[in-house]
Amino acid sequence: MIPRYSRPEMVSIWSPQTKFRIWYEIEAHACDAMADLGVIPRENAEAVWKAKNVEFDVDRIDEIEAVTKHDVIAFLTHLAEHVGADEARFVHQGMTSSDVLDTCFNVQLVRSADILIADVEALLAALKRRALEHKDTLRVGRSHGIHAEPTTMGLTFARFYAEMDRNLRRLKTARAEIATGAISGAVGTFANVDPAVEEHVCEKLGLSPEPISTQVIPRDRHAAFFAALGVVGSSIENVATEIRHMQRTEVLEGAEFFAMGQKGSSAMPHKKNPVLTENLTGLARLVRMAVVPAMENVTLWHERDISHSSVERNIGPDTCIALDFALARLTGVVDKMLIFPDNMLDNMNKFPGLVMSQRVLLALTQAGVSREDAYAMVQRNALKVWEERSDFREELLADKDVVAALGVAGIEEKFDMGYHTKHVDTIFARVFGDV
Amino acid sequence: MIPRYSRPEMVSIWSPQTKFRIWYEIEAHACDAMADLGVIPRENAEAVWKAKNVEFDVDRIDEIEAVTKHDVIAFLTHLAEHVGADEARFVHQGMTSSDVLDTCFNVQLVRSADILIADVEALLAALKRRALEHKDTLRVGRSHGIHAEPTTMGLTFARFYAEMDRNLRRLKTARAEIATGAISGAVGTFANVDPAVEEHVCEKLGLSPEPISTQVIPRDRHAAFFAALGVVGSSIENVATEIRHMQRTEVLEGAEFFAMGQKGSSAMPHKKNPVLTENLTGLARLVRMAVVPAMENVTLWHERDISHSSVERNIGPDTCIALDFALARLTGVVDKMLIFPDNMLDNMNKFPGLVMSQRVLLALTQAGVSREDAYAMVQRNALKVWEERSDFREELLADKDVVAALGVAGIEEKFDMGYHTKHVDTIFARVFGDV
Amino acid sequence: MIPRYSRPEMVSIWSPQTKFRIWYEIEAHACDAMADLGVIPRENAEAVWKAKNVEFDVDRIDEIEAVTKHDVIAFLTHLAEHVGADEARFVHQGMTSSDVLDTCFNVQLVRSADILIADVEALLAALKRRALEHKDTLRVGRSHGIHAEPTTMGLTFARFYAEMDRNLRRLKTARAEIATGAISGAVGTFANVDPAVEEHVCEKLGLSPEPISTQVIPRDRHAAFFAALGVVGSSIENVATEIRHMQRTEVLEGAEFFAMGQKGSSAMPHKKNPVLTENLTGLARLVRMAVVPAMENVTLWHERDISHSSVERNIGPDTCIALDFALARLTGVVDKMLIFPDNMLDNMNKFPGLVMSQRVLLALTQAGVSREDAYAMVQRNALKVWEERSDFREELLADKDVVAALGVAGIEEKFDMGYHTKHVDTIFARVFGDV
Amino acid sequence: MIPRYSRPEMVSIWSPQTKFRIWYEIEAHACDAMADLGVIPRENAEAVWKAKNVEFDVDRIDEIEAVTKHDVIAFLTHLAEHVGADEARFVHQGMTSSDVLDTCFNVQLVRSADILIADVEALLAALKRRALEHKDTLRVGRSHGIHAEPTTMGLTFARFYAEMDRNLRRLKTARAEIATGAISGAVGTFANVDPAVEEHVCEKLGLSPEPISTQVIPRDRHAAFFAALGVVGSSIENVATEIRHMQRTEVLEGAEFFAMGQKGSSAMPHKKNPVLTENLTGLARLVRMAVVPAMENVTLWHERDISHSSVERNIGPDTCIALDFALARLTGVVDKMLIFPDNMLDNMNKFPGLVMSQRVLLALTQAGVSREDAYAMVQRNALKVWEERSDFREELLADKDVVAALGVAGIEEKFDMGYHTKHVDTIFARVFGDV
Repeated sequence: MIPRYSRPEMVSIWSPQTKFRIWYEIEAHACDAMADLGVIPRENAEAVWKAKNVEFDVDRIDEIEAVTKHDVIAFLTHLAEHVGADEARFVHQGMTSSDVLDTCFNVQLVRSADILIADVEALLAALKRRALEHKDTLRVGRSHGIHAEPTTMGLTFARFYAEMDRNLRRLKTARAEIATGAISGAVGTFANVDPAVEEHVCEKLGLSPEPISTQVIPRDRHAAFFAALGVVGSSIENVATEIRHMQRTEVLEGAEFFAMGQKGSSAMPHKKNPVLTENLTGLARLVRMAVVPAMENVTLWHERDISHSSVERNIGPDTCIALDFALARLTGVVDKMLIFPDNMLDNMNKFPGLVMSQRVLLALTQAGVSREDAYAMVQRNALKVWEERSDFREELLADKDVVAALGVAGIEEKFDMGYHTKHVDTIFARVFGDV
Repeated sequence: MIPRYSRPEMVSIWSPQTKFRIWYEIEAHACDAMADLGVIPRENAEAVWKAKNVEFDVDRIDEIEAVTKHDVIAFLTHLAEHVGADEARFVHQGMTSSDVLDTCFNVQLVRSADILIADVEALLAALKRRALEHKDTLRVGRSHGIHAEPTTMGLTFARFYAEMDRNLRRLKTARAEIATGAISGAVGTFANVDPAVEEHVCEKLGLSPEPISTQVIPRDRHAAFFAALGVVGSSIENVATEIRHMQRTEVLEGAEFFAMGQKGSSAMPHKKNPVLTENLTGLARLVRMAVVPAMENVTLWHERDISHSSVERNIGPDTCIALDFALARLTGVVDKMLIFPDNMLDNMNKFPGLVMSQRVLLALTQAGVSREDAYAMVQRNALKVWEERSDFREELLADKDVVAALGVAGIEEKFDMGYHTKHVDTIFARVFGDV
Repeated sequence: MIPRYSRPEMVSIWSPQTKFRIWYEIEAHACDAMADLGVIPRENAEAVWKAKNVEFDVDRIDEIEAVTKHDVIAFLTHLAEHVGADEARFVHQGMTSSDVLDTCFNVQLVRSADILIADVEALLAALKRRALEHKDTLRVGRSHGIHAEPTTMGLTFARFYAEMDRNLRRLKTARAEIATGAISGAVGTFANVDPAVEEHVCEKLGLSPEPISTQVIPRDRHAAFFAALGVVGSSIENVATEIRHMQRTEVLEGAEFFAMGQKGSSAMPHKKNPVLTENLTGLARLVRMAVVPAMENVTLWHERDISHSSVERNIGPDTCIALDFALARLTGVVDKMLIFPDNMLDNMNKFPGLVMSQRVLLALTQAGVSREDAYAMVQRNALKVWEERSDFREELLADKDVVAALGVAGIEEKFDMGYHTKHVDTIFARVFGDV
Repeated sequence: MIPRYSRPEMVSIWSPQTKFRIWYEIEAHACDAMADLGVIPRENAEAVWKAKNVEFDVDRIDEIEAVTKHDVIAFLTHLAEHVGADEARFVHQGMTSSDVLDTCFNVQLVRSADILIADVEALLAALKRRALEHKDTLRVGRSHGIHAEPTTMGLTFARFYAEMDRNLRRLKTARAEIATGAISGAVGTFANVDPAVEEHVCEKLGLSPEPISTQVIPRDRHAAFFAALGVVGSSIENVATEIRHMQRTEVLEGAEFFAMGQKGSSAMPHKKNPVLTENLTGLARLVRMAVVPAMENVTLWHERDISHSSVERNIGPDTCIALDFALARLTGVVDKMLIFPDNMLDNMNKFPGLVMSQRVLLALTQAGVSREDAYAMVQRNALKVWEERSDFREELLADKDVVAALGVAGIEEKFDMGYHTKHVDTIFARVFGDV
């Protein structure tokens, strides 16, 4: 992922430096376990820890790899330069490169998941704050982009909260999916390395031993992981699209933060563009595009082929980095976005009172008017509002059939907004618990 | 999904007949709840149940829809033909079409999930049986399609079992994801229908109330559902590909079931094709292709747009039907597949003893031979086996350097297969528990 | 594809009846060619044509297939029932089932492409008509959903025309991609069937002989075909999204056709939903979802495996049917859509004159005002318009610095719309040629 | 794309240095055109060319962007540092950032396409050479991974040639798709910049003017471009998979190049892994994953939104770089791959003579034996070969019914390989022309 869409903490998880550090820990812990088993001398295991505080030299390792053509061997060679060739000679004994690579990859994914989980938690906090702030801010609900009935801005934030809360659960499940390690040898039989080594290393790294591996950890786990990220990305697009709609010139019910007269803003105050949320829409596509290749990676030939590797070298860092960046950006947008309640009312009243037409229709039928007559009564008045932008309530009050059916007070009452907001607290309690 | 890849039970979930039945139940239970609330007369609610045993007439409903241009209204009109126009006049009061459509869709997905879960359980039983049957059946493990070290056929089945067991868990999670219903009105505010109605209907249908809906149930749930199906499909491809590889003419370690001299078999016994597993490979692609559109469906404009609908009308039935068919087909294949242990041994011995070369190398270094010398000693003997198809063990026994390092008995011992199978029980215990 | 999104002509291409008819033609023409070569008796070839006017009995063929478990053999058996078992005994000689299946599939795709091409041509006609009709209908151009500078509605239609015209070219290329046939035998060597048979059959069916086939026609052709359809689908979504935006309550610059007071319309005239274009948005996803599986189908093992088949049995008809339906629906929408020029002007004047701010800025700098000063001058006046909804022109005329720089006439002139439309004819000439 | 899968020439197209160079050329040529039109002074246009040989300082531009928050403005500011603030004051006049960004992006894609086209041409040369080299190298053709009938290795290379030749055509079409530029202003109306400027800039950069643009060049072009790349990637996977199959231990008909006793090779000669072609399988997935987001990018709101940008900043370079690397890698593999004709014969004779069973069956029926009897005769002999690995020819010669039907010479003749290769020249002429 390009720097423009990256945050340093997530990037650092995917740096060569971090990777080598994890490799080191895997090898060192494995030596301990082998010493416990009496397979290698204790002093050799202890010697490996001499490198505990070493910053491995990525350039030097690359230099060795240019000769050995093998990344794990290059690392082991470099490690021996720190530990001593003789002391290091039991490192990696009975293990296969994939034991190190796959376990490391999962450690990186687990750490990435931890950041993503924290990201979603931060987003949830912002959404909750804005939901409570605008619990009662009236706004027209829209289906098909068309005004339907009143709702509140708080409900909009609350539903994004509920959706992201489900995503939090999905990310936690995804994290559990890939929190496994494997030190099981060339085809997963533990022929040359005891299962106790795997158990020890996994415990030290916060992983569970993969119950059955081949040369590799099975890739259905990773497919499920990236699929979960794809869902989170799609939810980001959902929220972003709402904000983009709100910021349209004609709607202007909300906007990404900007200081109106700020130095450096464009000369055109009307031209404040929702570029962050548009950007999030694109980032969602990037996150989502990893899902299918991750699923195609599930099928490996026999005990493994290496087709998955090039895919993961890219989507591993890129997808985690993009999603981390996107979540943080969205949190910033939600946290600071401008809400324009007056414009919400203006929009709702574009055709004054018309959002109440369904309620009036229902009231007429409940008052005993036949469905056909009720329709005709509503329609003739609604059409006037539509064509002349008159006020629906006033039209109804001037329509003697409607007055006959509902009475003046009955008509007036239909325009009480409380009718539409009476269950907001119930919904908030469902979403946030007692708040 | 075309009939060729369909099974009747799953198809019936997605029939118009079933759909209308579910709509009926939603409406009837909603009437009960409204009667409980005193919103509509009890006798009208009871009258709806007169249609309890009616098979709704799909053609008649289609006929009405041709006039009304609205499927839910067409159904309600037809329902009134059974219940009586007057008795039925409170049916659907305060509800919106989506309340019925979305809740019904989730009921269908839940029922589909139940079948898929049962499908995976049947597959697990078959995999477990074959794993136990071939726990000790020796076979060469392969990485990159190339012989690596010995493993057993039972381990192959066991890893598919473990993978499908994870898929079982994923399907159960996916089922929970979409086991919600919503009766919340035009924009989700319960303005015209009390939340108690939603609670009652959901309880009767085995669903949870959606904590916050708009006009629709949020589509991140469905995205997660179809993503889970995509992972299951990918695992099917994984298993299918292994079987296809086993059945290759040159490998022939296993095959889809056929009776050798069966009447009607091809004149060419060598031409028994793995067409079922190839078919499963294609079906996996069909299952997987629903994932991205389901994710694209997450973003709806404001309180809903209807872009998701055409997608779901297709991927809903098609993906569930294809996956059900694929799982059942795979279970049949696994259950009956032919295993050829003799060919497994023949293949392992294509280059006699060479699969033990890594172990010999390890033994030489453990015996104090330097890594370079050990390599040279293994390589010169391995090359002879490679070029002359001689026996690796015999070559080693004739190499005085190797004999000097390992001794005759030491060399012999390296060709003991027990070395590679010693942890099979451990792995089986991890996968199956105590068996 | 479900009937709801299907049109009969396209559906009929994919009916079993049509498929068997094409199979018949392939076999009959092949017999002719073999008779020409002297490989089979002329009278047997001629006998096959006795079935020329037969409607093949799909149920009967299914009945036979239930026994033979092979669709092509079932068809040949049924054909023999019409032609006579003895007369028919040379039919299919030296051919393999795939020769028939693959050539037939391509014939179906070619015919589908012909319909799709005609669909796009009809759409182009509608777009052109509307473009010319609204060539000068002023409308605000928007970037990021925010007002930018004036444009015309005709330019919007014209760019959709240009995009669909590119799609027309893509569909023609796609048609050429799959207009090949193959009668080359079990592994494509023509061992049992002369290349002259392939040439004759292809010529009769309007195809080119596939230069080199295996058992199958190579699937990169089909991948390219479905990719082209995916692009067309994406363009449909593009047009549909524009219309959905136009129909928003707050924008209301256009709408899918409806008669305002029409009998049976909703009681809520403001609630006319863009359901057709929303539906097109979903259909675009369905069309697009075929692209990746079609690409995954390219890789077949050796001379063929059958993994592609189940994919194509679905995406072949479904994608063509959905796209045909979508194109026709879009043509209807474009043809009849309502355009509201008055609302376009109202919207453009939401912040009166502000769309001219960029032009004024440019004029100030051209008049020698420094960039910083020009910005400040524009901004202070624009802000007033933004906050007070006053008129930008009047604000400028009241700003002595601006007047000093541009003069009164110079300011007035900046609000001439002709400035923005002066190149519309140039663009129309580029898109439509001389019109 | 990570360095591991990158080649410098393609990477350099996507460097900031190259990007700024292209921006520079666009601006400088635009100034020339404006001077030609008399819109800006000639000397200012000429002054811009003072920077002709400047290497723009990327760090300096980044530094400015950190302040201006706008990449194009940062570049223009830096340009003014070279040209002189006063001389540079007409640069970019009347243009919008997208005029520069979109035109530059297309220049980069065109240059990338040129490399990809050259890559495919190199691959074609390698495939052709190997096809001619192995035109007559016998090999068993396989369907479903199962031996079918004989073919030649040359035909395998020839069909890959034909497929890649189609890809060459697709890439040329794709190049033409995106070889357009646009300098049309904020909403594409040329309000502030004359179309002549666009024409001049495009001519200088080897592009065509986009007939109608908005703020951006329409993205259906880019969707078609990346779709073409996806097809090429899928073909790479197709070839790679064949080679992976060939290198299987049990098949060993070919292999990625290795020197058998080479220094540094593994101690296990049987363990030469097809890692390059496995890697290509993964790279194909990476190339393919760009297709759907590129298609999702087609839909932009009104005259543009910026959702496409983040997608393209990634898939632009990444997909081109990955495909370039993959094509070059595949060319190297094909060029040097080892072919083992003896193993091909060994494999074909795994069940000696059995690949001729279809031909014998055909001959029996042509000799007047009923289909049922012919089947039985072939089957009983084939089964012996299958079970006892005896020789099919000898079994037939010992079967008096077969001898009675075909005669001894007739049987012998059926085992003539020339029967299967007689049309190889015809096919080669179709693929390569006269060779």
